[in-house]
Amino acid sequence: MSNSREHADALFLRIAQATRDGRGITRESYGAGEECALRILEQEAQAMGLCSYRDALQNVWFYLAEDTLQEPCIIIGSHADSVPQGGNFDGLAGIIAGLLVLKELKKSHHRTTPPVRVLALRGEESAWYGKAYMGSSALLGKLDPAYLLNPHRTGEQTLGEAMHAAGVAVQYILEGKALVQPHQVMAYLELHIEQGPVMVARQWPIAWVTGIRGNIRHNAIRCVGQAGHSGAVPRWLRKDALLAVAELLSRLDEHWRVLLQMGLDMVMTAGICNTLAHSQAVSVIPGEVQFSFEVRSQQPETLARFYDLMRQECVAIEKSRGVSFVFSPQISTPPAQMDALWSEKLRCAAEKKGHKLESMASGAGHDAAVFANSGIPAAMIFIRNENGSHNPDEAMDTDDFLMGVQLMLDALS
Amino acid sequence: MSNSREHADALFLRIAQATRDGRGITRESYGAGEECALRILEQEAQAMGLCSYRDALQNVWFYLAEDTLQEPCIIIGSHADSVPQGGNFDGLAGIIAGLLVLKELKKSHHRTTPPVRVLALRGEESAWYGKAYMGSSALLGKLDPAYLLNPHRTGEQTLGEAMHAAGVAVQYILEGKALVQPHQVMAYLELHIEQGPVMVARQWPIAWVTGIRGNIRHNAIRCVGQAGHSGAVPRWLRKDALLAVAELLSRLDEHWRVLLQMGLDMVMTAGICNTLAHSQAVSVIPGEVQFSFEVRSQQPETLARFYDLMRQECVAIEKSRGVSFVFSPQISTPPAQMDALWSEKLRCAAEKKGHKLESMASGAGHDAAVFANSGIPAAMIFIRNENGSHNPDEAMDTDDFLMGVQLMLDALS
Repeated sequence: MSNSREHADALFLRIAQATRDGRGITRESYGAGEECALRILEQEAQAMGLCSYRDALQNVWFYLAEDTLQEPCIIIGSHADSVPQGGNFDGLAGIIAGLLVLKELKKSHHRTTPPVRVLALRGEESAWYGKAYMGSSALLGKLDPAYLLNPHRTGEQTLGEAMHAAGVAVQYILEGKALVQPHQVMAYLELHIEQGPVMVARQWPIAWVTGIRGNIRHNAIRCVGQAGHSGAVPRWLRKDALLAVAELLSRLDEHWRVLLQMGLDMVMTAGICNTLAHSQAVSVIPGEVQFSFEVRSQQPETLARFYDLMRQECVAIEKSRGVSFVFSPQISTPPAQMDALWSEKLRCAAEKKGHKLESMASGAGHDAAVFANSGIPAAMIFIRNENGSHNPDEAMDTDDFLMGVQLMLDALS
Repeated sequence: MSNSREHADALFLRIAQATRDGRGITRESYGAGEECALRILEQEAQAMGLCSYRDALQNVWFYLAEDTLQEPCIIIGSHADSVPQGGNFDGLAGIIAGLLVLKELKKSHHRTTPPVRVLALRGEESAWYGKAYMGSSALLGKLDPAYLLNPHRTGEQTLGEAMHAAGVAVQYILEGKALVQPHQVMAYLELHIEQGPVMVARQWPIAWVTGIRGNIRHNAIRCVGQAGHSGAVPRWLRKDALLAVAELLSRLDEHWRVLLQMGLDMVMTAGICNTLAHSQAVSVIPGEVQFSFEVRSQQPETLARFYDLMRQECVAIEKSRGVSFVFSPQISTPPAQMDALWSEKLRCAAEKKGHKLESMASGAGHDAAVFANSGIPAAMIFIRNENGSHNPDEAMDTDDFLMGVQLMLDALS
């Protein structure tokens, strides 16, 4: 991997420049920036002497010339799209890592069995159409056609219209027809930047991923109490919706603290919380508060039980405070376990080089979860990244990235 | 008071019809609805054989023909304005009560010493220019001229411009010149609907008011934490601004419960609480929350100490959660004590008729507080009212109202 550093830096830079939006990087799912990045990758692969083709869903596959595409394969994949005003490494790093693996395999004339193919997936980010993992779900015949009617974040068009305009054979999705059967994929490997601050805090350049957290969400819960004059209504006659929500969140936060102490894996977030714009005032007791709720965990039972606990606390607070909670539809994504054998391969490959490879759960969702939940052995490598993701300040060190690429190569050997 | 019921109902109805806005009642401070109500009151007084004049601040005074206006007086007063889409009784009830008292005094040829004058004040509601008690404060030379620059809630004009257009001699306010000296007013009496639900809950038709709560407010406190991916950031690395505010409010709510139990008088409200509109999302840890804080109490030391307690809790939460609280300017209004002698007169007058007159603190502010804090003996009578105030659903029973008018008459005898 002598000149890989310069190669990787130049390719990251070229795609960043082509998909810059003034503030960050924008590669819209089934839109212009995503298509632009894929074309550059196709040109680059050609220059590297690699082959490529697009499947009927407009995902791009890269492979070595001697691969007849008749045998089952190992996929190294990730996604080409980004959130609006996002960063350059979220998704793209995993595709470029795959190309560098193919480059090394080509150079060394080493042929793995089964063959490695690199998959550049479309439509992983939920920011555009409110649905994540569109490309990978459709590939495996698991994208509910109802999502084709999801509107764009601006309301301008539907997902189905955007897919059609991007050249996707939407018929496959309508029929629930898989382009790839699970038995045709021996493993799915994905390298991705970490999207939280753990690896920076712990000084881990790379890590293997134990599993991908699932989640249960309500996008909008209404807590309905009773508005009133802030001076004239005594405590015993109040139904303050905000103090009710504050008590709920404080109780759940304390339960969370205890459950972590007891060894469970979970995070809990209320990302949105608002008194009503048209009626809120300094001197009015809040009559209604709207908030969102999300719990994530690697453990299906932790998800389900914490969710039930939340609902129980709501009932208790309804009784004690005279408010009522009204829930929007529940949305859930199951957790995914990474493959033990492949994770062990990664760990051992690092050990052979004298490194101890640390592990962590992925709090964020990834296409790897879709493959894993279809029964395909999946594994992930995280790369240290400063400043989180989904913002223009993502900062991945190329040294860390190349360490991840080398680990993948070693595990494939 | 034989035909007072019909008289009161007709007058309330006439003013309601003239100031109706489609949904409720709108009598803007120093605006059209307020002026309209005052003109009807002036016409009515004339028809009743009473005299009236407007002072240089466009407040209206009603008095008996034989009153030379040379002696100190007892004022029966309240305000003619309302909030936008408010109710008909908040303020107006106190003026009409005063007119009915003058009517009875005229009819019975009973002359009180000192003479009773009825004062219809302008500009009591803070909803229009962010400042309450404008008419009464200006009358006593206590309206800070800086408030003349306050913008209208729509931003269209300033308070000074509206006052000038309404015929107010703004020069008095600029010079801080009182139209009325405290020694010229032997007492200020105000009848007002209760604005909370206590009297309905306790089945008290009328009550005497022990004091008027003061308050300390911050209109906008920012809790600044750190935004992050809701799945990827573990609990120990989060700086969740919403959970910080939830903990603050829950702690204060619990302190409030305990302090009530210990006999202190207070109410606490956070009427506004919002995650930031441009960056809030279900899957983003809130990086900032903005909220308002208000504490009200009859006891100056309770106000000051609970405020300090709030600030201490903020410091503790800043330390434990890595957030910071940033405060808008503190705004405060001191509590006002009602006069013991006049309160006793009200209580005794009720007792003579065989009624036990209950007492309660006023949580809402009133012009009576401005008179009391200028050293004028002040007393208030509350009338039972359903559905709170500052809304079109105010519901005062005329029987309760007339009981209050009779009590005032009896106390003046």
